[in-house]
Order: sequence, then structure tokens, then C-alpha cells
Amino acid sequence: MLHDVKQQSLDLHEKLKGKIRIQATCSLETKEDLSLVYSPGVGAVSQAIAADPSVTDRYTWRKNTVAIVSDGSAVLGFGDIGHLAVLPVLEGKSAIFKRFSGIDAVPILIDTKDVDAFVETVAHIASSFGAIQMEDISAPRCFEIERRLMERLDMPVMHDDQHGTAIVVLAGLINALKVTNREMERVNVVVNGAGAAGIAIARLLVDAGVSDVVMCDRQGAIYDGRDGLNEEKQEVALFTNKQKRAGTLAEVAIGTDVLVGVSVAGAFTVEMVNSMSEQPIVFALANPEPEIDPVTAKAAGVAVLATGRSDYDNQVNNALCYPGLFRGMLDRGVKKVTSEIKIRAARAIAESVQNPIATCIIPSIFQPGLHELVAKSIER
Amino acid sequence: MLHDVKQQSLDLHEKLKGKIRIQATCSLETKEDLSLVYSPGVGAVSQAIAADPSVTDRYTWRKNTVAIVSDGSAVLGFGDIGHLAVLPVLEGKSAIFKRFSGIDAVPILIDTKDVDAFVETVAHIASSFGAIQMEDISAPRCFEIERRLMERLDMPVMHDDQHGTAIVVLAGLINALKVTNREMERVNVVVNGAGAAGIAIARLLVDAGVSDVVMCDRQGAIYDGRDGLNEEKQEVALFTNKQKRAGTLAEVAIGTDVLVGVSVAGAFTVEMVNSMSEQPIVFALANPEPEIDPVTAKAAGVAVLATGRSDYDNQVNNALCYPGLFRGMLDRGVKKVTSEIKIRAARAIAESVQNPIATCIIPSIFQPGLHELVAKSIER
Repeated sequence: MLHDVKQQSLDLHEKLKGKIRIQATCSLETKEDLSLVYSPGVGAVSQAIAADPSVTDRYTWRKNTVAIVSDGSAVLGFGDIGHLAVLPVLEGKSAIFKRFSGIDAVPILIDTKDVDAFVETVAHIASSFGAIQMEDISAPRCFEIERRLMERLDMPVMHDDQHGTAIVVLAGLINALKVTNREMERVNVVVNGAGAAGIAIARLLVDAGVSDVVMCDRQGAIYDGRDGLNEEKQEVALFTNKQKRAGTLAEVAIGTDVLVGVSVAGAFTVEMVNSMSEQPIVFALANPEPEIDPVTAKAAGVAVLATGRSDYDNQVNNALCYPGLFRGMLDRGVKKVTSEIKIRAARAIAESVQNPIATCIIPSIFQPGLHELVAKSIER
Repeated sequence: MLHDVKQQSLDLHEKLKGKIRIQATCSLETKEDLSLVYSPGVGAVSQAIAADPSVTDRYTWRKNTVAIVSDGSAVLGFGDIGHLAVLPVLEGKSAIFKRFSGIDAVPILIDTKDVDAFVETVAHIASSFGAIQMEDISAPRCFEIERRLMERLDMPVMHDDQHGTAIVVLAGLINALKVTNREMERVNVVVNGAGAAGIAIARLLVDAGVSDVVMCDRQGAIYDGRDGLNEEKQEVALFTNKQKRAGTLAEVAIGTDVLVGVSVAGAFTVEMVNSMSEQPIVFALANPEPEIDPVTAKAAGVAVLATGRSDYDNQVNNALCYPGLFRGMLDRGVKKVTSEIKIRAARAIAESVQNPIATCIIPSIFQPGLHELVAKSIER
């Protein structure tokens, strides 16, 4: 079955030779058309922009565009397989942008792994676009690149692998808590996997009011003062794990309400699930194999389960978020992606599920009104 | 009338909000569609490219794409009016690319005037595209940028303001010589205006076999040894003006067969035209006002006249060339734009005019078969 999907996808890509195209919106059938679209008419538009750069978005496609930038250093689950290998992924995101929110997204491959060069390159082309989406860039480089681009550019910059995932997890958690009658401020969460997505999830859950989050890496719980923490994990230690709990994942999972995995297949066991609080909530997001087999998890008493897979209920899929989120930010002239904006987007995704039940805390990407709801949630 | 065109163009641009759009070529209506276009199916395509980067063009849009890059330092006739002001020009070129040869051309504004930073930026994004078209970049920076990008990148790089103009001038000259029964190897040409376009025209005419070319700047003829020549003009002196003629434009124009102006309105006089050889050929390309008024020129005995204007016969318009030229280069896998390729393109443009006469040495952009003929002329 997976083999079929692979071959079908290769065949489709070979047939299409590009999942996206440029389309001209203007007629070019007469000399008069040419004189309006190009010289001499276009000169008036150039002069208007030169006189007042703020009218650029009145006369060009810029306000409807997003650059999707990647160096191919963390492509899907494959790691650093080269910047060319990420192009079909970026084209897919562009097609999804167009289909679900009408945005013109342009794939841009950056052929350097040097942080300075990456930042300089994106900064120098950024004024061509309305926003920047970062994609498939490995940690810890993604953190510094995003921070520096956000400081430097007066437009939305967002690393989807971090914040898109975090927003959809928060959306799912909002509904999972509704289903199990709990409040955000009273639940504890353990996040396993301290990569880009894990750290973003922890940060957003704390910002959204979760009582406490404990993050684990391969050595167990991260706490302020633990040996061998890199810069990012030191920062994590400051806003998580209030009680400075130490121990293995299995130890800190005892009594927790929510377990979020952005790690590897097999990381969660039946014993762990059994040791959690009543009505345990589990996000097992490792791909293609979740941290715990869904059937096993349900049998072990998990009340609400979400995975990254499209063939189970409750798929955590970034594409639920980014089309509407960027649509809203472009339309409202948002310049910075804040926690507040992310939380609003998460609430909108959660609200798009009218009657959440355990098997439906997260909407389908085809849910009518979903992307419009996310876009509308973005106020200045 | 020009006012009307200006206002109509502003209105059209405001209505369209972008002369180009991204279009998805794939269906995204079902979960199955998503699984082929995006994860998990796209993973097979990424892996195929990782294993063999040469298949990138089999599975993506890259081989049909051109990046149109500009810093806005020489926008139309307006000079350095800022990188944002060039965006409507680049969108117009993209729409023309699509309409006349089906190419997906992406406008990229580079917000630096520093040559190193420009080159680094374009080099780092170049692998996203099949070719690079440089546009509206001022001299002498355009020469160094083009030279360095050509050295560094394994794909066609071409500054349209230089070579697009030169190719169409050569095409026009080929037919003008047919009309006046002369041979390329026996004619002399004076080019007035030693900017980017002028130098490229001189070089291409020499490469195409013109007997001799004399270039003039504001101080008159450029010759080896003249005081105050910059690097580019010193190079020009080495391949032009075999007899090392000195003097004003009026002086070197005496007895010449062809006068090419890429300078300013009024630069050519009736006296100059009268002093040329029998059946003088004049390209008066200054915009919007040519070097000599067309009616005056004809009255003074000019045998064949071309201008840059769409409201006179024989418009020298780069758009006659670049759609077909890039189509051919992309289709044939050309890596370097050579003089030979440019001469072939010029011949194809000339040949597209079936029966050249004085008032029709250059085809219309709408001439059936023109762009296909140019594309076919590009052999490896």
C-alpha cells in the first residue's frame, strides 16, 4: 500500500513536471494590452511606487505572496538529504496554499548550510514577498535563522515545522480537554523530544496557560541546572518543569494528564499510559510510525489519541493551519507572528470542530470554513 | 494620449493586484490527492532526487522556470528609483514569458546595491530555477554581476538590457542589409552611447562579422589609448575602431553605413544622416523620444529606420527575443549564453520576417511562429 502511494506519487510528479505554474492574469493579445501591461504604461506604476513605496501592494502581487524557503537540511523524516530534494515538498505546500487560501507561494531553495549566508540571502530577497515561511530546516540552526529574520524583516516569518505543529497540537489539546472536562490551567503535559517541534509545542502550551510542561530528551527530563544542556534546552528549562523534576520519561509520565511525542516509534509504552492520570490524552506524532501503536494505546485506556497519520483519527497536520494563518496575516498587515496570534489560530482550528468527541478533536483539512475561520482569527 | 496610457495602466494594475499568479496543476480534493501531492507520497520523490539530483527536472517545475532578478537601479528610463519600483516591470516580463513561451518566470527583487551581496544572494537561490534573467541593473555593476554569475552558475544567466537589445538590433540589421543589398562583412557601424546596451550591441555586431564598429560616448569616439576610459570602455577600444579614429560623433558618422543610438533624444542630426554612406540605416533607440524624429529622418533620406517605440515601424523590443531564447535554452539544457547562441537567435528573429522591406525589418511580437523559431534556433 505504501509502495503503491510511492509509485503513484512518482508517476504523478513525472506527469505534471511541476505541481505549480505561473499564470498571467492579464490579456496580452494586442499592442494596446502590451502598452498597459509593459512599457510604456508600466512606467507610471513604477513611478508611483518610487514616489510612495507603500503603494507596492496596491499595484503588484506582493501582498498575496509567501516565499517558502528551505535548505533541505531536515526533509520530512529523512534528515539532510540536500536542498534539491526539498523542492517537491515546497511545491506541495505551494499547491496547498493556493487550494485552501488562494495564496501565491514561491518555493525558494537556499543552497547553503551557513546560518549567516542563509539569513543574508533570505533578507535580500524578502521584499519581493509578503511573508516568509521556513520549511524543513534542521535544529538548532532553525532557531537562530528564525530569530534573526524576525528581528530584521518587517513581515511575518514563521518556521512551519516548529509553530505549525505547535498550533495544531494546541488546537487538538483544547478539544481534548473539552472532551475530558478539564481546564488548560489545571493540566500537566510531558513532551518527549526536544527538537524544533517539541520546543515550540512546549512554549506555546505554556503561553496558552497549561499548568506545567516537562520536556524530555533522550536523557530524560530537562530541568534548570541539568548537565549538558545546549543553549536552546537551557532556555526550555527556564519556562518548563517548575518543580525541577528529574528522571526518565517513564518516571515523569507518572500522573501526567497529557503526553506529547515528537520523537520515535516505540517511545511510549503501555505501562507509561497506565501510570498517567485518569482519561489520559496522548499525541503520538512520530512519522510514519507513532510513539505507540494506536490500537494498543486505545486498549490501554487512552481517552483521546492523535497521531501524524492520515489513516487514523485526529491527524495533526500543519496544513490545517498555515493556509489560513498566512491568509489572515497578509490580509491584516500583520508584521510579527506572536504567541497571541498562534493561540488565536489554534482556537479557531479547535472551534471549527462543532461537536468534538474523542475520535474527532482535530478537523479535516477539507472541513468547510476551517481556513476562513483561521484567517479571521488574526486581528492586528 | 500618453497620459491616458498611464492612467489606464495604473487602473489595470490596481484592478489586477498582480499580473501573475501561482496556479496549482494538481487536484487537491481528497485525502488520496493530498497523500500523493504531499506527505507521505512526496517522500518518494524527495528520496529519488536525493539519490540522483539529476532527476530534479523530471519531477519538479524547475526546468520550466526563470528567476527575473533586479535591484531596481536602472528601471526603464528612470534610473535608480528603488528595488520595489521594478516589481511591476518584472511581473510584466513574467506575464510575457508565460504568454509567448509558457515559461514560469518569478520576479525576485534584490534589496542591495553591493555587487558581492547581489552575486551571493542570486547564487544561493539559483538552484531553485532553470535560468537567471537579469533586468534593469545599472552599468558598470551589471557587467561584473553578470560575469561572476556566469562563472559561478551552471545555467543560463543573461542581462536582458544588454543582450536582449543587442540580439534584436542584430536581427534588424540582418534584414536592413538584405533590404539595402549589403553584406555584414562590408558595413561599418557607429554606436552612440557606451552604456550597457551600447557595449553589448557593439560586441555582438563584431562577433556577427560587421567590418568595423566605432563606439562613441559623450566625448566622442572611443579608441585604444584615449584618456579617461573606464575598464569597460578600455575593453571596448580593443575590439572596435580598428583605425583608431578620433573625433566627435558627427565626425566619425561621416561615410558610415549604420548609425545606432542608445543615447538621448536629439543626438542625431539631419547633417549627420546626410553625411553617411548611400542608403543610410539608423537605429534610434532612445526612449521615449528617439535620437532623431522619425519623420525628419525619413525626409533626410534614411533608407531604413528602427526605434524603440511601438507607434512606429520596426520596434526594437527585447520581448521579441527572450521568451523564445529562454524556452530554447531550457529545453536544450544550455548552460552558457554564448555569442553563437545570440547570433542564432538574431537570425531566427530576422528570418521570421518573410519578405523584409524598409518598413518591416523587425517582426511584431505577435508574428505567428516567431518565438518557436527563436527557441528552435538554440542547439547545443
